[in-house]
Amino acid sequence: MPKFLRIDMTNLQLKWEECPEKYLALGGRALTSQFVLDEVPATCHPLGEYNKLIIAPGLLSGTNAPSSGRLSVGAKSPLTGGIKESNAGGICSQKIANLDIKAIVVEGQPKEKGFWMVKISPEGAEILPANDLAGKGTYEVTDILRQRYGSKVGVITIGPAGEMLLAGAGVTNNDSDGNSSRYAGRGGLGAVMGSKGLKAIVVDAPKTFDVPVKDKERFSAAAKKFAKILTSHPVCGEGLPAFGTNVLMNIINEAGTLPVRNFSNNGRFDLANNVGGETLAEVAKARGGKATHACHPGCVMRCSNVYPMPDGKVCSPIEYETAWCFGPNLEISDLDVVAKLNYLCNDIGLDTIEMGVALGVLMEAGVIPFGDAEAAIKALEEVGQGTPAGRILGNGAVFVGKAYGVTRVPAVKGQGIPAYDPRSCKGNGVTYATTPMGGDHTAGYAVTANILKVGGFVDPTKAEGQVDLSRNLQIATAAVDSTGLCLFVAFAVLDNPEGLPTVVEMLNAQYGLNLTVDDVTKLGQSVLKNEREFNAKAGFTSADDRLPEFFYSEKLAPHNTVFDISDEELDSVFNF
Amino acid sequence: MPKFLRIDMTNLQLKWEECPEKYLALGGRALTSQFVLDEVPATCHPLGEYNKLIIAPGLLSGTNAPSSGRLSVGAKSPLTGGIKESNAGGICSQKIANLDIKAIVVEGQPKEKGFWMVKISPEGAEILPANDLAGKGTYEVTDILRQRYGSKVGVITIGPAGEMLLAGAGVTNNDSDGNSSRYAGRGGLGAVMGSKGLKAIVVDAPKTFDVPVKDKERFSAAAKKFAKILTSHPVCGEGLPAFGTNVLMNIINEAGTLPVRNFSNNGRFDLANNVGGETLAEVAKARGGKATHACHPGCVMRCSNVYPMPDGKVCSPIEYETAWCFGPNLEISDLDVVAKLNYLCNDIGLDTIEMGVALGVLMEAGVIPFGDAEAAIKALEEVGQGTPAGRILGNGAVFVGKAYGVTRVPAVKGQGIPAYDPRSCKGNGVTYATTPMGGDHTAGYAVTANILKVGGFVDPTKAEGQVDLSRNLQIATAAVDSTGLCLFVAFAVLDNPEGLPTVVEMLNAQYGLNLTVDDVTKLGQSVLKNEREFNAKAGFTSADDRLPEFFYSEKLAPHNTVFDISDEELDSVFNF
Repeated sequence: MPKFLRIDMTNLQLKWEECPEKYLALGGRALTSQFVLDEVPATCHPLGEYNKLIIAPGLLSGTNAPSSGRLSVGAKSPLTGGIKESNAGGICSQKIANLDIKAIVVEGQPKEKGFWMVKISPEGAEILPANDLAGKGTYEVTDILRQRYGSKVGVITIGPAGEMLLAGAGVTNNDSDGNSSRYAGRGGLGAVMGSKGLKAIVVDAPKTFDVPVKDKERFSAAAKKFAKILTSHPVCGEGLPAFGTNVLMNIINEAGTLPVRNFSNNGRFDLANNVGGETLAEVAKARGGKATHACHPGCVMRCSNVYPMPDGKVCSPIEYETAWCFGPNLEISDLDVVAKLNYLCNDIGLDTIEMGVALGVLMEAGVIPFGDAEAAIKALEEVGQGTPAGRILGNGAVFVGKAYGVTRVPAVKGQGIPAYDPRSCKGNGVTYATTPMGGDHTAGYAVTANILKVGGFVDPTKAEGQVDLSRNLQIATAAVDSTGLCLFVAFAVLDNPEGLPTVVEMLNAQYGLNLTVDDVTKLGQSVLKNEREFNAKAGFTSADDRLPEFFYSEKLAPHNTVFDISDEELDSVFNF
Repeated sequence: MPKFLRIDMTNLQLKWEECPEKYLALGGRALTSQFVLDEVPATCHPLGEYNKLIIAPGLLSGTNAPSSGRLSVGAKSPLTGGIKESNAGGICSQKIANLDIKAIVVEGQPKEKGFWMVKISPEGAEILPANDLAGKGTYEVTDILRQRYGSKVGVITIGPAGEMLLAGAGVTNNDSDGNSSRYAGRGGLGAVMGSKGLKAIVVDAPKTFDVPVKDKERFSAAAKKFAKILTSHPVCGEGLPAFGTNVLMNIINEAGTLPVRNFSNNGRFDLANNVGGETLAEVAKARGGKATHACHPGCVMRCSNVYPMPDGKVCSPIEYETAWCFGPNLEISDLDVVAKLNYLCNDIGLDTIEMGVALGVLMEAGVIPFGDAEAAIKALEEVGQGTPAGRILGNGAVFVGKAYGVTRVPAVKGQGIPAYDPRSCKGNGVTYATTPMGGDHTAGYAVTANILKVGGFVDPTKAEGQVDLSRNLQIATAAVDSTGLCLFVAFAVLDNPEGLPTVVEMLNAQYGLNLTVDDVTKLGQSVLKNEREFNAKAGFTSADDRLPEFFYSEKLAPHNTVFDISDEELDSVFNF
């Protein structure tokens, strides 16, 4: 029977319990969101004793289903004040699943200041002092713990940002190279882990693909079929493996929906290609890095990369949204600067998107100039040092905006909006406005039909059809985020009628269930309902389901559009 | 006919208009709150172009009704995100009323950065460049403008804090001595004025008590009677004139509800008397200052004071809540330090209460030590300098808490809670939790019946009766805040059955109305309903009508009580 591992930080005790019946058929985001709704008081202080951090592999994690190793982290968010699920690749999801652990729950708060770590292996789990790791960056912590416990262990950790309880802090874990850069970055979950005094979790499990599967043969056939569906799709099988997510840079620029200079009035950046995927692949390969790389074992899309930096260190990966937020968003066009900022975030334990958006606001405030790479690097270094300026930046875009009285802050529910301007990618605008997660592109990635013409086409500059598009994607995403599958499988699933039935087939074979495709929709809907219920209890209303006012009044070139989805339409997103 | 003066900061134009019919019977808070509800989009950015700042004298301001010179300032608050009315003494309310101006409305936003001022006199109004005043403290600005326009003018202004758009910034005006220290301090309204590029309003009016009164004889009789009601009450006629509001220091300490060391577990401070009203009166008199002083012409309670500081400057007044927040709340027991911090806030343009509560949180975070006067002074000076640390502090208690990850932040709806611990002054706790204003002691000052035994007695340590007490006080306060009368008349009005009818008599005589005492209740209720409506539109829910969680779990000595009014009871406050 799968287990819950409860880490009681108040009494510094561990407790194994059988996975409660009601959570057995849930995984990933479905599990974390249900759990947070059930056990976390919605109005509690996110950094206080009543919040809980839950870490859960997806339903398919630990099998050999392709690209199924995502790890979900959930809690009440210190950034948004609402419910949060953020998921990451890395090697820990599959390891945790193979230890027959349904979820790790971190609760309570130590009576005295200090940091601890938890070591989990097939032999059991133990809680250990970790003050020796406190203050250290995630790269060093991961190195130390891999030296201490073996190079195959997975290390879930936070950086100084999480220890300092900054709302921009993420939770990371390492990939197969030992690289600590697979972030559940969004929503400040690293600060929740920090508030519990938990610096790291070491997951020592020899197995990766061996969780119990009821009907192995049937599962194996479905998994193979699904791999083929992925590899035969032009995005999943060609674009992503060739250039990674940063293949989007030139596409989004060409589409005129690339936010430049803190979402100013121009959706194009003439130097975009300098920080785009094609350039990245070329430079990475020339320096002995990799243009394609798997963030977790068994991924067939391999959209990650390994970028050697001039100082000899390696940044892996540079994602499109990171290249955007440290590039065009700041009017910076030097990939090595992007890599440096990315690396700093990884090491300090910060969400790259939140920091990039926050730096944009800092530049909008005139505190540092747009395009000033040195100033941006110094600003980010100060976060790690915990100076007052660093604490302002490290708490995210809205915090920077308040500190300096900036009204043009691209954020929803306290969370910075990423890499697709909602004025000319309006489907994403609907997602940003309405997802319970706050400004989040992954929650309903309408770039598919708006720009990539995957799963149909909905004109990104028009209001028509965007609410339906976002709604369907949000439902599908909530379901996918529960399986442990990478969201990028959606490209293929949306275009291939056999995609979703094959996912269902894998789930049925693994768990001995009789789910239909409709059940997947119902699962996604129920996840969203749970999250909306939590947020309503926490005090969210439809007033929170809006974009910042400047998107409604300032036109964006070249399409010269504003965001014009009415409040009534936005309020109809969750009418199921 | 009374007029509205609209200051259009977008086009730098002034516009006189007849007071709209619907606002004729309103004044003070009733007017500002109705206006904000009517003209300010509830979800707008408080520092953006759509917010409006409205400045309105009370209904009785400009007559010779005793203690009727309060000036209301309203807007959407950058501190709370909700509706805000904050009122102050000083000489401007009566002057504005005597210019037949019902309200001054500041709207729009300059297209280019810069500061302007408005000069108003019987001859008209004009808008003038004021970049020469930018960056200057309120004392200097007031001195300059009194030199320029005559020593009798009233000056409404903001300090550097308002210019820097800090959420702790207030709007001040001067008293008869030319002392710029009469603050509409709470809620960050100074930042709203700053966001409009308006540095100052000079009110040049020769008259103080001569607004039109329909039945002068009847009014005069009622005003005389009301003066007698005030002067014959032990609080209004004796306690306040002798020691000012700071007479409360020893009373609240004795009652065991004095918040000490950022609302820690002890409601008493052994050195409270060092910063209390009796000491203040003694020192002030010994140094040639005043223990009693009127904040505006015609006040019979004269609860203000003039405190000469060792450096030769004068701080006037030191209120109880200020002495508390810079004294016991920080474990500081030196009145000269309190005066220095108070003076700094006045000059930089900051709300003393918000800064005192914020400093408490900064000390809780360990950034500076409790009791360290020098560090507190330096921290406050940095606000004026606009350093990153200064911007953190200047944005208030919740902002400091977020910057440093502090969970024990005594604030509601983003606004710091003042000088009466809600765990053993539970009526005030209900007010803090539920008033649309955020943590605000004046909104329903249950200290009356809880501690002072004015208007009956409700045991402050028990839950019973507090909701009714707070509800009735909130209604009465909303009405009083609309008349221009100082809230302190409530002590006498609550104890004297002729009090309220005499207020009604003055209103009827002035305006030729036939109001009854019931109509005053209805007015107060309607003000609260308007404010609640605005807040609901802005996204507030019952989740916002709660105290911070530590008040529910940490016991306060000496009564060893927690705040234990249930959510259901709190939600019943506005059941009228």
